[in-house]
Amino acid sequence: MENRKIVGLCGSLRKGSYNAMLLKIAGDLLPEEIEFEVVSYDDIPVYNADNDMPEAAERPLSVVKFREALAKADAFIITSPEYNYSIPGGLKNAIDWASRGKDSPLMHKPVALMGATQGMWGTVRMQAAFLPVFTFLNMNPVLQPEVLVAQAKNKFDEQGNLKDEVAIGIIKKKLENLISASRV
Amino acid sequence: MENRKIVGLCGSLRKGSYNAMLLKIAGDLLPEEIEFEVVSYDDIPVYNADNDMPEAAERPLSVVKFREALAKADAFIITSPEYNYSIPGGLKNAIDWASRGKDSPLMHKPVALMGATQGMWGTVRMQAAFLPVFTFLNMNPVLQPEVLVAQAKNKFDEQGNLKDEVAIGIIKKKLENLISASRV
Repeated sequence: MENRKIVGLCGSLRKGSYNAMLLKIAGDLLPEEIEFEVVSYDDIPVYNADNDMPEAAERPLSVVKFREALAKADAFIITSPEYNYSIPGGLKNAIDWASRGKDSPLMHKPVALMGATQGMWGTVRMQAAFLPVFTFLNMNPVLQPEVLVAQAKNKFDEQGNLKDEVAIGIIKKKLENLISASRV
Repeated sequence: MENRKIVGLCGSLRKGSYNAMLLKIAGDLLPEEIEFEVVSYDDIPVYNADNDMPEAAERPLSVVKFREALAKADAFIITSPEYNYSIPGGLKNAIDWASRGKDSPLMHKPVALMGATQGMWGTVRMQAAFLPVFTFLNMNPVLQPEVLVAQAKNKFDEQGNLKDEVAIGIIKKKLENLISASRV
């Protein structure tokens, strides 16, 4: 697993996002020899096929940089809230931009999806909504164990630490499975 | 049905979009007494809760205008392609912005979803992906008949007219059902 790199993407852009905390915790739990980088989609415009290749000679600069950052990944961690029982549109929009072309930086790669939410159901519907997307992209989603952090307000402290040892154990197992999947 | 207004939203921003053609055709097929307006999400940024109320005093101007345009609708027509077996992220992002708050201009309103695609399956997965969203928003989706225009290249002429009489009949029936739903 030397020289391996995992890229993390958070579905929420707000400061103090529980999913940003969750992504940081996942990164901290990775073995030291694995490089970890978090990328953001905050400067990516809404998708317009007229600005995408081959219609446009080049994609918007923020999209080019986003795709380049993703391309360096051997595997992905995506943490995300659930918006309207589905994937946050901004996150899906970034994935749409990254999905295009035979040089898509997402295709065929392992991905671990996790979610935290203030409510009761821990992003189950958001995670279900991702399955067709992963299918189309022929990604390798690490399905088990499911990381569903419900009632997040009670699970994180003010410094962004996860206080739930059971959840930490599940995240560790998910990461082990992600690393195994990226060794194939 | 006097003084009723239907707002149309297209999931694709590209020029020459089959779904923009489909939306125009649907608008043309509406009874004369119904006002029809098409709105676009092309200038809406990706959602960030820090820029949304109550955290921000006001939403981005493009979002405010988009919500105001939607608020005038008694019912909606959404036409959309399918991106990665799901809803285009940009369209979902616009819906996320419009979904927030007790004054959401989407909630409780009838909506007719339609899709055109170059491929074989006519946006079936995109339409399925919308069902949880409509559920969360407590909208009133007109489920039948399904408008699934597959192999769009063979169905539209160069002026954007739909040449398929069967499809036109299905669209007419869908619109009748949408109008009935908005009379309740």
